[in-house]
Amino acid sequence: MSSRREFLKNAALMGAGAVAMSRLAGCKSACPVVGMGTRADMEMKHAPIPHVRVGLLGIGNRGKLAVRRLTQVPGVEIVAMCDSIPERVEAQLPFFKEQGLKTPKVFSGTTQIWRKMCELPEVDIVYICTPWLDHTPMSVHAMRCGKHVGVEVPAAMTVDECWELVEISEKTRRHCMMLENCCYGRNELLALNLCRTGVLGELVHGEAAYIHEMCAGLFNQKYSGGNWRGIYGIKNAGNSYPTHGLGPVSWYMSLNRGDKMDYLVSVESAAISRPAYAAEHFGAGDPRANPAHYKNGNMNVSLVKTQRGRTIVIQHDIVSPRPYTRLNVISGSKGILSDFPLRVAMGADAHDWLKPDELEAFRVKHEHPLWKQGGDKAMTLDGAHGGMDYIMDCRLFHCLQKGLPLDMDVYDAALWSCLVDLTKKSCTRRAASVDVPDFTRGAWKTAKPLSVESMVI
Amino acid sequence: MSSRREFLKNAALMGAGAVAMSRLAGCKSACPVVGMGTRADMEMKHAPIPHVRVGLLGIGNRGKLAVRRLTQVPGVEIVAMCDSIPERVEAQLPFFKEQGLKTPKVFSGTTQIWRKMCELPEVDIVYICTPWLDHTPMSVHAMRCGKHVGVEVPAAMTVDECWELVEISEKTRRHCMMLENCCYGRNELLALNLCRTGVLGELVHGEAAYIHEMCAGLFNQKYSGGNWRGIYGIKNAGNSYPTHGLGPVSWYMSLNRGDKMDYLVSVESAAISRPAYAAEHFGAGDPRANPAHYKNGNMNVSLVKTQRGRTIVIQHDIVSPRPYTRLNVISGSKGILSDFPLRVAMGADAHDWLKPDELEAFRVKHEHPLWKQGGDKAMTLDGAHGGMDYIMDCRLFHCLQKGLPLDMDVYDAALWSCLVDLTKKSCTRRAASVDVPDFTRGAWKTAKPLSVESMVI
Repeated sequence: MSSRREFLKNAALMGAGAVAMSRLAGCKSACPVVGMGTRADMEMKHAPIPHVRVGLLGIGNRGKLAVRRLTQVPGVEIVAMCDSIPERVEAQLPFFKEQGLKTPKVFSGTTQIWRKMCELPEVDIVYICTPWLDHTPMSVHAMRCGKHVGVEVPAAMTVDECWELVEISEKTRRHCMMLENCCYGRNELLALNLCRTGVLGELVHGEAAYIHEMCAGLFNQKYSGGNWRGIYGIKNAGNSYPTHGLGPVSWYMSLNRGDKMDYLVSVESAAISRPAYAAEHFGAGDPRANPAHYKNGNMNVSLVKTQRGRTIVIQHDIVSPRPYTRLNVISGSKGILSDFPLRVAMGADAHDWLKPDELEAFRVKHEHPLWKQGGDKAMTLDGAHGGMDYIMDCRLFHCLQKGLPLDMDVYDAALWSCLVDLTKKSCTRRAASVDVPDFTRGAWKTAKPLSVESMVI
Repeated sequence: MSSRREFLKNAALMGAGAVAMSRLAGCKSACPVVGMGTRADMEMKHAPIPHVRVGLLGIGNRGKLAVRRLTQVPGVEIVAMCDSIPERVEAQLPFFKEQGLKTPKVFSGTTQIWRKMCELPEVDIVYICTPWLDHTPMSVHAMRCGKHVGVEVPAAMTVDECWELVEISEKTRRHCMMLENCCYGRNELLALNLCRTGVLGELVHGEAAYIHEMCAGLFNQKYSGGNWRGIYGIKNAGNSYPTHGLGPVSWYMSLNRGDKMDYLVSVESAAISRPAYAAEHFGAGDPRANPAHYKNGNMNVSLVKTQRGRTIVIQHDIVSPRPYTRLNVISGSKGILSDFPLRVAMGADAHDWLKPDELEAFRVKHEHPLWKQGGDKAMTLDGAHGGMDYIMDCRLFHCLQKGLPLDMDVYDAALWSCLVDLTKKSCTRRAASVDVPDFTRGAWKTAKPLSVESMVI
């Protein structure tokens, strides 16, 4: 589908970008885009791709699960797979045989081999499950090669990278969706439905978090391919992983579509658990037992103020001994939903949380149509996250197949990811207030929120 | 007890302030303190006052409850009562007769009559339950008259007032305890015990809140004597009521006694619920239906960073429809306690909250000795708050009777109250980072934390 003809068709369809498109169609490994004025398009559509061919990039923890899921989505085929480590790709091949599926082309053995996979004419979308620091370079190259992109979270690690994603998506007119699965969690979809249907009234305040203890894992060299996650925290303060909580809250508040982030501040606690773990396991004399070894503290907390006057708390702590939570709080003028565990309080009775039977009735009444449609199947197919990953994939590929705008666009990827950089800037400068870029350059004022009705599979 | 002889004895006991003391002993309605160098004394003691005579100032919602409680504390006598509204004072007199207690002297009828009560020679402590804006002027005058002070929260509404309380307390060598009852809540004392005994390990992060919906009350002219609380929110942004959540967390972290607040930032949401309430009840044309009528938004959220690298979240929302919470979260290197409802997760099992039976066993094991000693009685006597108010009073008067330092001193009152002003400054300036004053002028570095063993009644 990603032929020159397809590009020109799309270019004509959208009335923009024809020159850039025609150059991109013949993209090789280095294919710079000519400088051109770009504009935000929050409703970017393409000609339908009834049968979507996927190039899967990165077969680590997330990539392995993606193989299982994507092969279950109707009208989707993994035509190529890439990982620099050959064993990872090879380990997946028997699965394809067992399932009676065509064996994908495989790319492996060098750190740059992924570029070749991006250039395959038969790939429609590159689905990126690699470590963080590769997300933007890989997404950019894939778009320059004329491919749509699905990219794991965060999509970018600096504000510059965020702008690069936006610029390249606009210039190439290719989708760049960050694979923020938590937006499709059952409770998150319930909350989204409450917000869209006005049940919570005017929104006031939201809370988002990634609190997920994995301290030992951050020292495990076998974990996640050389432990890029642990190393990142040694070198960087700030909330490096803000999007699982923030994506859903941004949806509730329709950030980029009627509201925008105005400014943020961030504070970070001392590094306590990592040096303590290292002292216990490697000895007090090990350099890793020194708190100064770590830029990243235990807890990062940030506050966002939006243009319409809402407030958001965003937390990140992956080393303190605490139960998992994404907080997932949304408070409005008519009630509140809080999660982990799910609690709801409404209207004049809001001084008490709904009792278990009331909560169940409330959930049934307000279940998001998308979950009603696909939740049961998703829960049986999703290997890790209670259905959210599969529902996300279904929506992504449904939109590509029907030629519809995606639920999450490059502006969302940029906005949610830019907190990685901005929280670092703020928390290392005595919580200095930092303006949040408007990646839509004003288009947020007129863009329509994602409607409940549009979200079908 | 507050005689010239007593002043001189105390002055000699403490080795400081003799000149000021001797002047203050003859204090009349205006008794300026001569300028003198003062220093922080975190262990200020006085000669024991076996029978403590109370002048109760302000007989509104809190004052009425104080009458019921204080008359139950052994060795305490209410010898005087004052409220500018005569009916309020008179309404309490039958209670004293019913209880067979001596009728207190009453002061009423003018807005300045309280000064006379402060000057009564037979009053040892002035217990202040008046509206916020009067707290500091009344506390200052009472101390200048040689009285100790217990003052409702917040003790001060500006940083200048905080400094004034500190300065006058030091100069007069009189106690000024803010009546932060929530520090003595059962779960707060449990958490304090966990922190002091090292069960939670090195502390990382705390969360505090006053989320208590009272939107209709803020418009009720009969509520709280002319609705000073509603009016304050019309005129001021910021967290006007930070101490119920913050006091306990400050105790956990031993702020002023081993750690201190370094800086803070604050954001505040738009005013949504108050104008909506006004539009519904007074009509859309009423000035109160205009969001611009309110400086105070629905939600204020602030972040504090401490010198030792801990982080604190502080929230305030008294108008959104939400269940009550003070959050009361304390997270350390060995576990976490979270409240509303109480939850605990510990050590290697911290990925899950304790189950109900485990939690009950944990509570029994770690119950604070003070609660074990007085909790049952407190729960039967405390009119409103599950025992915390009575336990607080018992501790305050126990320390006065025994000549011990108080649990909460003027430095705590100043620190916890200064957030009223600092959060306003920050949230009205795009969350500018604001340094928090060190009211102890360095004494926090050597002051010892409140010990578990010292807290008996």
